[in-house]
Amino acid sequence: MTYCLAISLYEGLVFASDSRTNAGVDYVTTFSKMHVFTPAPDRIFVVLTAGNLATTQEVLHRLRRDLDAAEIAESLRRVRYLFEAADYLGRLSCEVQLAHMQGMQRAGFSSEASFIIGGQIRGQAPGLFLVYPQGNYISASPETPYLQIGETKYGKPALDRVVEPGLTLEDGARLALVSLDATMRSNISVGPPLEVAICPRDGFAIAHYLNLKGDSPFYAEVRERWQEGLRRAFQLLPRFDWET
Amino acid sequence: MTYCLAISLYEGLVFASDSRTNAGVDYVTTFSKMHVFTPAPDRIFVVLTAGNLATTQEVLHRLRRDLDAAEIAESLRRVRYLFEAADYLGRLSCEVQLAHMQGMQRAGFSSEASFIIGGQIRGQAPGLFLVYPQGNYISASPETPYLQIGETKYGKPALDRVVEPGLTLEDGARLALVSLDATMRSNISVGPPLEVAICPRDGFAIAHYLNLKGDSPFYAEVRERWQEGLRRAFQLLPRFDWET
Repeated sequence: MTYCLAISLYEGLVFASDSRTNAGVDYVTTFSKMHVFTPAPDRIFVVLTAGNLATTQEVLHRLRRDLDAAEIAESLRRVRYLFEAADYLGRLSCEVQLAHMQGMQRAGFSSEASFIIGGQIRGQAPGLFLVYPQGNYISASPETPYLQIGETKYGKPALDRVVEPGLTLEDGARLALVSLDATMRSNISVGPPLEVAICPRDGFAIAHYLNLKGDSPFYAEVRERWQEGLRRAFQLLPRFDWET
Repeated sequence: MTYCLAISLYEGLVFASDSRTNAGVDYVTTFSKMHVFTPAPDRIFVVLTAGNLATTQEVLHRLRRDLDAAEIAESLRRVRYLFEAADYLGRLSCEVQLAHMQGMQRAGFSSEASFIIGGQIRGQAPGLFLVYPQGNYISASPETPYLQIGETKYGKPALDRVVEPGLTLEDGARLALVSLDATMRSNISVGPPLEVAICPRDGFAIAHYLNLKGDSPFYAEVRERWQEGLRRAFQLLPRFDWET
């Protein structure tokens, strides 16, 4: 499995992903699920991937091929709005899934994949889209400023309690780490290294990028302090009326 | 959906459940999912239920009918070990599911149900079993002292960080409430009132039972303090090296 998330804040965007890939429990490997595209100075896109690895890799190959081909009408360089990038990505994903669907179905596997694509095109606000396996997509909003793909449930409670669009980018990145850590603790199919990218509004570049291995001292400190903080929160819960 | 959990501690057992039942989003009702059986002074059983409501209700009817019928060889009064109670419950569940399976499959529904059954028989240690829809079962252990059924993922991270068999029964009950609250916040198919029962080792009775409505002051205080505690934990996370 996979767990990727992105948060849309007033200050910009935060992206985070694990990098464990598995086909069964006896073939576990590490692949980056975070891909940055800066095809022109006026735009940046970050793509996070979940689902069938062959599908997501082929979609990324096609995204890059379309950028190389001058004659192709549609590419991340040519889209005029972020939603057009999500729409285009969704169509590529459907094409790739369809191309391998018969073989996959015969073998009892799924070729489905989900994506988060976020970024900014100059003159427009930054944005985040979740592209479903069916090719349709939804965007984050001030009420729900985050999107998740993959194994999303374990990491959702921490997000729901803290997230709001006024967080700083750094707080957003810390929150993403906490959400990833909750998921990794409860589900072994999500694992390090963790990638975190911070993309400030109107910067059109990744301002900070972290690749945190499982034994990274910074990540260890995040984990320990969060664990301590939760235990302290637990100790401060109210007593029942029969405890006095 | 449903979320029920039980925790096995050195001091005894804690059971907790939500009480929201839904068939689609437009038929949402409230049913207790916690059922206490004290068929003889030397034993107590608590049954938590998840899954198809018709199945779980019929299983409970049959459990009670078997207790009424003096001539029936198998009942919660007659089992000699806790695992026999789990085995018996699993067989009843399979019988009920099978009886309605054809009609349910025709309609595209599932008659599956899961149960947690826990308690104590005099002379033996307290115990907890999770009975799968297939009728087989697993028990909690000191390494994994809790069992969950229903919508289990949202509430697992808090459990995993705090649970250990040396907790007091009251701490176990608070932890169960926190785990339920995390689930309710992230999933509207799990909802109040919440039931919590504390069953001390060698007590053969429920020592404390709470039925907490959504507006219960105690539950509100648990929620607020947990939320505050998490926010404080979040504020104490380490800074990135570029923040000084």
